[in-house]
Amino acid sequence: MDSMRDNRIIMDELGPDMAKQAAGIHAAGMVRDGMAIGLGTGSTVLFAMQQLSLKVKEGLDITGVPTSFQAAIRARELGIPLTTLDDHPVLDLAIDGADQVDPLFRVIKGRGAAHVREKCVAAAAGRFIIVADPGKIVPVLDAAVPLEVLPFAVTPVLTSLRNLGGDPVLREGQKKDGPVITDNGNMIIDCGFGPIDQPGQLEISLTTIPGVLSCGLFCGFTQKTTVIVGDMTGVRILTR
Amino acid sequence: MDSMRDNRIIMDELGPDMAKQAAGIHAAGMVRDGMAIGLGTGSTVLFAMQQLSLKVKEGLDITGVPTSFQAAIRARELGIPLTTLDDHPVLDLAIDGADQVDPLFRVIKGRGAAHVREKCVAAAAGRFIIVADPGKIVPVLDAAVPLEVLPFAVTPVLTSLRNLGGDPVLREGQKKDGPVITDNGNMIIDCGFGPIDQPGQLEISLTTIPGVLSCGLFCGFTQKTTVIVGDMTGVRILTR
Repeated sequence: MDSMRDNRIIMDELGPDMAKQAAGIHAAGMVRDGMAIGLGTGSTVLFAMQQLSLKVKEGLDITGVPTSFQAAIRARELGIPLTTLDDHPVLDLAIDGADQVDPLFRVIKGRGAAHVREKCVAAAAGRFIIVADPGKIVPVLDAAVPLEVLPFAVTPVLTSLRNLGGDPVLREGQKKDGPVITDNGNMIIDCGFGPIDQPGQLEISLTTIPGVLSCGLFCGFTQKTTVIVGDMTGVRILTR
Repeated sequence: MDSMRDNRIIMDELGPDMAKQAAGIHAAGMVRDGMAIGLGTGSTVLFAMQQLSLKVKEGLDITGVPTSFQAAIRARELGIPLTTLDDHPVLDLAIDGADQVDPLFRVIKGRGAAHVREKCVAAAAGRFIIVADPGKIVPVLDAAVPLEVLPFAVTPVLTSLRNLGGDPVLREGQKKDGPVITDNGNMIIDCGFGPIDQPGQLEISLTTIPGVLSCGLFCGFTQKTTVIVGDMTGVRILTR
């Protein structure tokens, strides 16, 4: 029984962590001296940042734009110099995670509620490097799509999403009563649509709902995207 | 000399005010007992709200969703009961001003930096009533388009707007040093494009720039829009 449990731990917990670590280390290897880079949010990016931290200590000269308060706090702890999109409106590359990636490199992001700043940073970057474990690679995007929404408009946006065929839920916080509040001071709605046939069209439909800042569908960066999938044995670099 | 100056005052200042008042009073006359309405922002809407205030004192039973702190403050001063889009996600009508209106009832708004909440309210309303003076009615939209933008992304958004052929300027505050901050905590970029050939397409292009909450082009409400133009002699109700 204990042995079965141990195996499950290795498969469920250690496996994904090793996969994320392999992907993160490979992504960090793509960063060259003098680069300004986007620093994503989430567990996979952390491994890339830890690797970058080691390289900075060895003399690598980089600066990073954090996509969230989390990324900024981590970067400061790790000694990675920070900058802003005001000082570096054009970035060499951005490293970020994803909730799902399809074969055309269209992506759902936003589980960490940071997708609006992540989209700003991805847009500013010359290359968009996605680090993922194998569980994130899917044939068709079907995860709930996170939307960042002005508190003023949450209720009519819920109605608009139902009219689009979605199943929207206001995201509740943990360690904070009531809804999650983003780094920008807004709320998050997670909206399931089942398998998404036309993610690019859905991204526009969702983003143009009044009161929505942006949604977690990223379909405009496929041409400049590299997907690094880690597993227990190494990494795979996906090509479209 | 004084007489010339008086005439100019009548034409430049009193004229528009009388025109706005005529339009506002007419718009208020479209509000029926029991309605939930959107309360716009700006000088023309004020006349409608003053007229509604009189009717409320006479017993008219309405409730209003304010599109800004200004609209809320005015409504409270005028005794107009307030509600929210959470309590009334569907409104009977919204009354609002405009910076420019074209013959197809496409509109530029946002001189008052309230256009994102105004767009949320317009979307929620069954009818969108625009009150204007004759100077706002134009054959082709060509005013600068205001955009509400996350402070995080202002500099890359300026670049994106220049790449779209625009001439963007970060709006500076008065009685506040530095940029205007909106009721939602963001900044405003005013972007000139000259005469706008395809306002509906431009609205989508601007709204989907990462970091832009929404822009002041309102092209999705033309079917439910009524335009009331006041002048020195009365009002004209425009039809498409």
